[in-house]
Amino acid sequence: MQVKYLNDLATLVSLCKRRGFVFQSSEIYGGLNSCWDYGPLGANLKLNVKLAWYQAMTRRDDIVGLDAAILMHPTVWKASGHVDGFSDPLVDCKKCKNRFREDTAKVNGVVTCPRCGATEVTESRQFNLMFKTHMGPVEEDSNVVYLRPETAQGIFVNFENVATSMRRKIPFGIAQIGKSFRNEITPGNFTFRTREFEQMEMQFFVKPGTDEEWFETWKKVRWNFYLDMGLRENKLRFSAHGPKELAHYAKAAFDVQYEFPFGWQELEGIHNRSDFDLSQHQKFSGKKLEYFDEAAKEKYLPFVIETAVGCDRLCLAVLCDAYREEVTKDESGSEDVRVVMGFKPRFAPIKVAVLPLSKKEPLTNIGRELRDKLALDWEVDYDETASIGKRYRRQDEIGTPLCVTVDFDTVNDEAVTVRHRDKMTQDRVKISNLKAYIAEKLINF
Amino acid sequence: MQVKYLNDLATLVSLCKRRGFVFQSSEIYGGLNSCWDYGPLGANLKLNVKLAWYQAMTRRDDIVGLDAAILMHPTVWKASGHVDGFSDPLVDCKKCKNRFREDTAKVNGVVTCPRCGATEVTESRQFNLMFKTHMGPVEEDSNVVYLRPETAQGIFVNFENVATSMRRKIPFGIAQIGKSFRNEITPGNFTFRTREFEQMEMQFFVKPGTDEEWFETWKKVRWNFYLDMGLRENKLRFSAHGPKELAHYAKAAFDVQYEFPFGWQELEGIHNRSDFDLSQHQKFSGKKLEYFDEAAKEKYLPFVIETAVGCDRLCLAVLCDAYREEVTKDESGSEDVRVVMGFKPRFAPIKVAVLPLSKKEPLTNIGRELRDKLALDWEVDYDETASIGKRYRRQDEIGTPLCVTVDFDTVNDEAVTVRHRDKMTQDRVKISNLKAYIAEKLINF
Repeated sequence: MQVKYLNDLATLVSLCKRRGFVFQSSEIYGGLNSCWDYGPLGANLKLNVKLAWYQAMTRRDDIVGLDAAILMHPTVWKASGHVDGFSDPLVDCKKCKNRFREDTAKVNGVVTCPRCGATEVTESRQFNLMFKTHMGPVEEDSNVVYLRPETAQGIFVNFENVATSMRRKIPFGIAQIGKSFRNEITPGNFTFRTREFEQMEMQFFVKPGTDEEWFETWKKVRWNFYLDMGLRENKLRFSAHGPKELAHYAKAAFDVQYEFPFGWQELEGIHNRSDFDLSQHQKFSGKKLEYFDEAAKEKYLPFVIETAVGCDRLCLAVLCDAYREEVTKDESGSEDVRVVMGFKPRFAPIKVAVLPLSKKEPLTNIGRELRDKLALDWEVDYDETASIGKRYRRQDEIGTPLCVTVDFDTVNDEAVTVRHRDKMTQDRVKISNLKAYIAEKLINF
Repeated sequence: MQVKYLNDLATLVSLCKRRGFVFQSSEIYGGLNSCWDYGPLGANLKLNVKLAWYQAMTRRDDIVGLDAAILMHPTVWKASGHVDGFSDPLVDCKKCKNRFREDTAKVNGVVTCPRCGATEVTESRQFNLMFKTHMGPVEEDSNVVYLRPETAQGIFVNFENVATSMRRKIPFGIAQIGKSFRNEITPGNFTFRTREFEQMEMQFFVKPGTDEEWFETWKKVRWNFYLDMGLRENKLRFSAHGPKELAHYAKAAFDVQYEFPFGWQELEGIHNRSDFDLSQHQKFSGKKLEYFDEAAKEKYLPFVIETAVGCDRLCLAVLCDAYREEVTKDESGSEDVRVVMGFKPRFAPIKVAVLPLSKKEPLTNIGRELRDKLALDWEVDYDETASIGKRYRRQDEIGTPLCVTVDFDTVNDEAVTVRHRDKMTQDRVKISNLKAYIAEKLINF
């Protein structure tokens, strides 16, 4: 048997649409550039990924959760530097009027229109990447609000409320999942870079001087998270930011990268943000944000180690990583290809499929009853159409770990056949023992 | 003992801030009108509410999930009627320039400025409640997009993709949770009415002619959901929309209402939307959305029964419903008040607290070890400060069902005391049996 992993994105995009993982947003209207909707299976997968991250964070003794609003006071984005600094340089082509990024459109050092090839362009202007809207019944400058370009600031402005209400001592962290928006000029690569996206960010507040050690700790913790998720280690790497790449707020930065079919790209950024954010908010709000360290009897602004994951791109990595084709040749030499999404059971959108061998009673009744019973604990699919071989393949292609087949013997022996997605082995299991069997198999897959 | 339930919102707002359920958004900047952030406990509570709803929906055999983007093609909102019809009539006060809703500012039949009392106002103009922004590098009419005012349309435009990819036959439903935005003129009542809010909507597609029966079915299912959640039945009621209150798309509508401290208010709307939405999208997109019913050998546009919950207001109802004060008098006549958030364990932000009786080893070591072990399965708090009585009260006030006390006997008998939040009974439990004990107690609380 030969195993082929994913090497072109188009194969995955097609599977995602066909099987209900990801659809183009507003597709019946021709789509909305770079916007995607998660279909039924994608929605489950994404929820599983979010729960894994949120629990890995907030079930630690030193981290609590948060769920801040997308809309924030506009001064937040003055303080964070986004109003003045979060922009791309844009130029207009004098020939075809196309507007494009100057910094990525240089051919042999000359700014060249990517649409028509002309080199006569206007002076460049800074284009802010924040989406802007108005709150309240009047559209004027005084009530401009922004869609947050990152969730981090929701954590910084709540630092004191969280520390006080949760009686937390430094070091401790705040973790949150939520949508952010960036008006990117060049989004792309399926769900990898989109204008609306979901972040999973954790800001860890530490005593200045301990920040470098905590930075190293978090690098290790986060690396292990990806291995625990089941991502292939040879597809993962760290990438350090050189001094020139460092953001204005960062003292040190590492990316966790994954090798997508379109190359190595960032999944997560781990940053030492120093006390940049808290000191900016202290300055702009006029409110003291210093922390009093009872043990050390001193006041200070905590430093922040941040771990910031792009949730959608992590889901995309899980999808890319899971895809495999198992190619076998039979005696006549004809090829058979089994497409498997090899999700770790925790991330599989459907955990169990119930498949009666016939479309008739009593097998269908038994099957439906089983489905309802198993659905109290897991996401369960039920399918009574087509041959059993074809139905197994359907489940393989969406990564269902276990298939439960109700057959003609079931009526007599009160047992079913459970088929393993990866090993393709089959066990005969008493219905009375089925829940315990499945629970155990999903953990030790 | 006398039990008092919540009768003023201020008490709850204060508890929510003090204990980390809900903070005012951007509070250090003076707040952002009607925006709220969920603190660590609120974030957990909300997640628990969302999971309960999502599982109650998608683990049915006839419903699948979806997670559509907030940003959609602008024509969607033409088709849905929101661009033209989703507006409030606004007038400006000629004296103080205040802008306000005409329809809610009538005193003795005369439009009166709620700020200065003047009655000279401008002609009324329709003010659209959708937040508007621009996508792409140019701010012009051609690239206006809206923040969705409801999640429902994400389901309608994906109807065909979902039905095909998931091989679904009518009747079936699509369920989704997500943020929506409405530029309300008069938000208020804490998290009840906010400009940014989360919805939990399910659209159920049925054959025309079966819609009235399905409408009745869904009324029952949804009523039982709230009882299962543990909300007090005398705080719940149905309210039918009369012919004049019916929205333009609705053939019939019922609200599920909850009695908040500020009165009976809608938690959920159950609507018979007929084929209004699919026929509008068919018209505006030019794409056929008819369903071919194989059994009946006919084509039709399905009717839709919708159940639409406001997630934030449901969380608020859970908070209001859970709050109670237990007032007892001791022999000297002095009053003791125990504040309890009586959440059903499933919704409690923290399931178990571990409380060592002393701040010293070995009790703290044993306590921390226990915390880490229990945190593999549940949200666990650890607290070693203050007297044990005070710590029990702290946990009561955030609704933690079980407190595990590590005491001086623990070293010898390898057992701990588990205290029940509501009954205040205490059981001595072997540590080796603690997980099984907790798992059972959380289910049969």
